[in-house]
Amino acid sequence: MINENSIILAAEKETGRTEDFSDGVFAVAITLLVLEVLNVPHAPEGRPFSAGELATALGHNWTVYVTFLISFSTILIMWMNHHAMFKLVQKTDGVFMFANGFLLLLVTLVPFPTQLLGEYLAAPAAVTAAAVYAGLFVFISLAYIGLWWAAALRRNLLRPDVTATQIQQRTRANMVGLPAYLVAFACAFWSPFLSVAICSVLWIFWAFTSSRL
Amino acid sequence: MINENSIILAAEKETGRTEDFSDGVFAVAITLLVLEVLNVPHAPEGRPFSAGELATALGHNWTVYVTFLISFSTILIMWMNHHAMFKLVQKTDGVFMFANGFLLLLVTLVPFPTQLLGEYLAAPAAVTAAAVYAGLFVFISLAYIGLWWAAALRRNLLRPDVTATQIQQRTRANMVGLPAYLVAFACAFWSPFLSVAICSVLWIFWAFTSSRL
Amino acid sequence: MINENSIILAAEKETGRTEDFSDGVFAVAITLLVLEVLNVPHAPEGRPFSAGELATALGHNWTVYVTFLISFSTILIMWMNHHAMFKLVQKTDGVFMFANGFLLLLVTLVPFPTQLLGEYLAAPAAVTAAAVYAGLFVFISLAYIGLWWAAALRRNLLRPDVTATQIQQRTRANMVGLPAYLVAFACAFWSPFLSVAICSVLWIFWAFTSSRL
Amino acid sequence: MINENSIILAAEKETGRTEDFSDGVFAVAITLLVLEVLNVPHAPEGRPFSAGELATALGHNWTVYVTFLISFSTILIMWMNHHAMFKLVQKTDGVFMFANGFLLLLVTLVPFPTQLLGEYLAAPAAVTAAAVYAGLFVFISLAYIGLWWAAALRRNLLRPDVTATQIQQRTRANMVGLPAYLVAFACAFWSPFLSVAICSVLWIFWAFTSSRL
Repeated sequence: MINENSIILAAEKETGRTEDFSDGVFAVAITLLVLEVLNVPHAPEGRPFSAGELATALGHNWTVYVTFLISFSTILIMWMNHHAMFKLVQKTDGVFMFANGFLLLLVTLVPFPTQLLGEYLAAPAAVTAAAVYAGLFVFISLAYIGLWWAAALRRNLLRPDVTATQIQQRTRANMVGLPAYLVAFACAFWSPFLSVAICSVLWIFWAFTSSRL
Repeated sequence: MINENSIILAAEKETGRTEDFSDGVFAVAITLLVLEVLNVPHAPEGRPFSAGELATALGHNWTVYVTFLISFSTILIMWMNHHAMFKLVQKTDGVFMFANGFLLLLVTLVPFPTQLLGEYLAAPAAVTAAAVYAGLFVFISLAYIGLWWAAALRRNLLRPDVTATQIQQRTRANMVGLPAYLVAFACAFWSPFLSVAICSVLWIFWAFTSSRL
Repeated sequence: MINENSIILAAEKETGRTEDFSDGVFAVAITLLVLEVLNVPHAPEGRPFSAGELATALGHNWTVYVTFLISFSTILIMWMNHHAMFKLVQKTDGVFMFANGFLLLLVTLVPFPTQLLGEYLAAPAAVTAAAVYAGLFVFISLAYIGLWWAAALRRNLLRPDVTATQIQQRTRANMVGLPAYLVAFACAFWSPFLSVAICSVLWIFWAFTSSRL
Repeated sequence: MINENSIILAAEKETGRTEDFSDGVFAVAITLLVLEVLNVPHAPEGRPFSAGELATALGHNWTVYVTFLISFSTILIMWMNHHAMFKLVQKTDGVFMFANGFLLLLVTLVPFPTQLLGEYLAAPAAVTAAAVYAGLFVFISLAYIGLWWAAALRRNLLRPDVTATQIQQRTRANMVGLPAYLVAFACAFWSPFLSVAICSVLWIFWAFTSSRL
């Protein structure tokens, strides 16, 4: 009853449920961004808004919209990268599951610094908000490196048809993120806007990298 | 080990996970509507509500209920359309993934203008709220056109058994939404209620269109 | 390339994605209950709570806990029933999809009257809160009857191996809910507690019914 | 048309949908933690924060971050355990479904005591908050024992290839949690910090246990 085929099938099923759970966390985190960061403006002194005042109040929140766009795009790219990496993986083990869990922890955190940055990007405390934002992505870069290490470098959990070139490409792509986000983190203390600009440019870079892999 | 069958299988798996992720985003967005727009009324001056006063306070929120119903129905139809489109798709590529990501971005945004419209539809600022609401659906129409373009017109990612008639029907159905929502957007500046009425009529139209496709 | 098998496969896939989406909505709605109804109590005049005061403040929210328990159990049973019904269904059509959409609309609404009832069950406005709560379940009973009608009675979308006895059992089980929730709704105007008690007894009844089917 | 294979297939499908629903609940609950517990600090008297003040205000919430980390890790381990247990299960019945439902009820509750503990761990009411937190995990231990009893001990719902050793290992692993969390609960009345420390140590213990199973 237990032959090689059924073992491969069980392994596939295991990866499948980890992917489903990860997809669920990514999907909820990306959808919660709106709930966390976008708030309907209210007229300050009880008198109702005129149409123009409501438009002005909405326009005033531009930092919130910019931050929302960057965070949404970054989570989407992160999901695509996760997706692309898992397509190469056939088996899971304990270390891989924890590396994935650590990544998911950081993904669920994204709405919080997004809210922080949306609120404080145009305020005197922008330095702190941008440092926390870029700092989270430094950790996320580390988590992707750790996940790939657990999948490919520590013990081979990959599908037998994955080539050495594919492994090298992904290893190199992962290594680009960390220094770039470290630069964004360092820039936050000098120019919060530049730090946020680097984070935006990075997801566009990921977008092109991930579609090539 | 890698033959034509396994390539088709891998392609199917890829579409599968994109569908799962999209379904997750649609499901969370549609369920968050309640959290965003419906609030339990509280007695204003600390004295507890009588049964009649609570009923009156609940009834007073009718704009919220109407907006909730329209948004829920529209997201549901959008999901059905997404579902119907993906049934025709066999492969994905980078452009298709981004077109889908852009659509999901707009889907997660729906609760925000819904809340805005629910709060301001019967207030002086209704013009702004209705314009934002209809404006989002203009963008969503564009996103559906873009997704279909990426799936069928730019490069053929469709299943081999999809007929030219099916492609034409869907292309035409997608082209109806954009002008209709543009009219709803223009109407918002003149009569917010008419604009919302057009948005309601549209999801009923989509409902019949999508069940035919 | 298109033979009978591939058609059956496509039909199964279609039901599968509707189930996944429905499961997503049920899962999010049941998990949002906590977010909607349970709130950490705060010391009223700024002075911090002592351990005993916090315990008292938590105990004071007993109506919230009771309502949470009833709503969670009811959504869980509703999901099981949905699950049991979909196991019999092989195909979907437009009417079935809309009947399912209407049911999901009502499922996403459950957190709102739960919050209302939790807040007002021990207050003078309990009559209104209990009537809204029981009233929603009257509509949910109607939605289950409609879904079953769309699946089995209007056009046969069921699997070929479903027996006439199975159809009759389910038809009868669905018909019990509506009068029972109508009684709960009517009782709300006379005794809110009795109305809530009937709603509790009902999910226990569903529990036994659904495990037999 | 109905042979032994199709019955096994149907049974697998049934477990599959219960797993999907459970995964959805776990994924939403773990992602909602951020929404429930992390709040952007606001400057108290209307004057905007300086960068240093915002950093101080963020650092002041350390109890929230510690509690978030413990709860996230515990839900993740609980999901892995759930996952590992379901891999052994082939069939479901009513009692198993209710045992799973009871577990999910407790899982959705986790964000509430997490928020309570994050807010009160460094306050005079820490005793109450820690007792509620540890108390919930006492119930969760009971729920895991109940689920395993329903799957393996009451009636055999396991796959035919599960060995007696595997059953014994899991039975013993489940029995460790209950006394440990009872000790954490008792400690809460004497030292809330010790109680929280025991809860932290426990998820690390689960991590090693679950990866061995």
